[in-house]
Amino acid sequence: MDLDKKPGIVFIGAGNLATNLAVALFNSYYQILQVYSRSEKSAMELAAKVKSSYTTEISKIVSDGDIYFISVPDKAIQGIADSLNIKRGIVVHTSGSTDIQILSRFKANGYGVFYPFQTFSKSRIIPFNDIPICLNADCDKTYSQLNRIALMISNKVARLDSQTLTWLHLAGVFVNNFTNHLLVVSKQISQEKNFDFELLKPLVEETVKKAFEGNPQAAQTGPAVRFDQNTINLHIEKLKEYSPELAEIYKALTLSIQSLSNKN
Amino acid sequence: MDLDKKPGIVFIGAGNLATNLAVALFNSYYQILQVYSRSEKSAMELAAKVKSSYTTEISKIVSDGDIYFISVPDKAIQGIADSLNIKRGIVVHTSGSTDIQILSRFKANGYGVFYPFQTFSKSRIIPFNDIPICLNADCDKTYSQLNRIALMISNKVARLDSQTLTWLHLAGVFVNNFTNHLLVVSKQISQEKNFDFELLKPLVEETVKKAFEGNPQAAQTGPAVRFDQNTINLHIEKLKEYSPELAEIYKALTLSIQSLSNKN
Repeated sequence: MDLDKKPGIVFIGAGNLATNLAVALFNSYYQILQVYSRSEKSAMELAAKVKSSYTTEISKIVSDGDIYFISVPDKAIQGIADSLNIKRGIVVHTSGSTDIQILSRFKANGYGVFYPFQTFSKSRIIPFNDIPICLNADCDKTYSQLNRIALMISNKVARLDSQTLTWLHLAGVFVNNFTNHLLVVSKQISQEKNFDFELLKPLVEETVKKAFEGNPQAAQTGPAVRFDQNTINLHIEKLKEYSPELAEIYKALTLSIQSLSNKN
Repeated sequence: MDLDKKPGIVFIGAGNLATNLAVALFNSYYQILQVYSRSEKSAMELAAKVKSSYTTEISKIVSDGDIYFISVPDKAIQGIADSLNIKRGIVVHTSGSTDIQILSRFKANGYGVFYPFQTFSKSRIIPFNDIPICLNADCDKTYSQLNRIALMISNKVARLDSQTLTWLHLAGVFVNNFTNHLLVVSKQISQEKNFDFELLKPLVEETVKKAFEGNPQAAQTGPAVRFDQNTINLHIEKLKEYSPELAEIYKALTLSIQSLSNKN
């Protein structure tokens, strides 16, 4: 990287994560050279936010960027890696569940994983300061360059290998996707059974607070951990009428809570 | 109730909920006359916190309280209701999953449900202001007396019938017990796979924030809603080795997310 000028970044992808990350980099120190997306609308919208040019053709991606962020759906990464034709610049992807070696073509440039561990929406640009950025790199030199960039936008940077990243991503599915789904079904229940979803908010917030302040296992309460079979049966009966899938979720989670409690 | 003197409250039970509720009532306006618990240690500890007397014998519970809070495990409520021998005073229980009619013996006094919708620990006394208190009562007169008490400690009071309370409690199991369990297993994974559990905190907090600010279903991300079968298979394979129960939870929640997404 030429340290006399602002490093120039190319974004391949203009989705939720790309949008939040590009805006954070743009707002810190970096120049966004170009945004690529198959969707002209997405490319144009992100380009406007970060004052860059844009393209919808892979062959027109500029070849002299300092860093290329591949931030596309997991299954599209390989295709981009195969067709990206550049002279220089580190190439990273932003996926927590894709191996770093998918980018091994770029050995001469340096390659890595730059994985901001958060859930993003295009319509909700959130500050990056507290978002952990998980890095993996082909070598120490690339790592130190990625680390410098990550520290410009976040104060939580961790270096993790591919295996650990996969487990982190899996834990993310549990605490984000699955927790969100529990909130989705609770919201539906509240609407159909006529109580205010907001009633649940202090309980959820306290649950999360407790889990990170202490020992969430010791904090477990409720019918499962009490082995309160009357209440469990009542709940399963009600859920079966309401939604058999939810009854299955209830059973699986109850068994898992009880099995953990038996082990300890 | 005699409005010239502070209403006197009797607590039957000295567990997590009873402790937090008794302290909140004591700190607001009320006099705690007596604490009953089968465990002398629990009774004595709570009595010390709220400057009351205590007993471990049901027959020695004072008979002229203004309100009796039965805050014991669900399956013990019936026994208490049967053996409680009092002259006057409204009788309420604090359980979200027990019908109000379990207290119908106290028709002459007035009876009800006084259910603070939160997760409590004895060791963590939390402010009541924002904790929703859900009320059910045998009649409007009792309701208005319970409502007055609830509003002394909280600014969120809702009147809900038995059926609705049951569904609220069930939603509470989803967002508290089950979410907490997802956090428990994620913490275990983080410890065994060597990453910092704290990495998950901003993600969980954002998940909860988003769910109450907007539409959690529209905010759903991850392999399930993307129908990303490669990642789903990879995760299930890894989980099967790690814990077959977790693999079952993963499958049940993934199917439920996908089924909801198909319906919309």
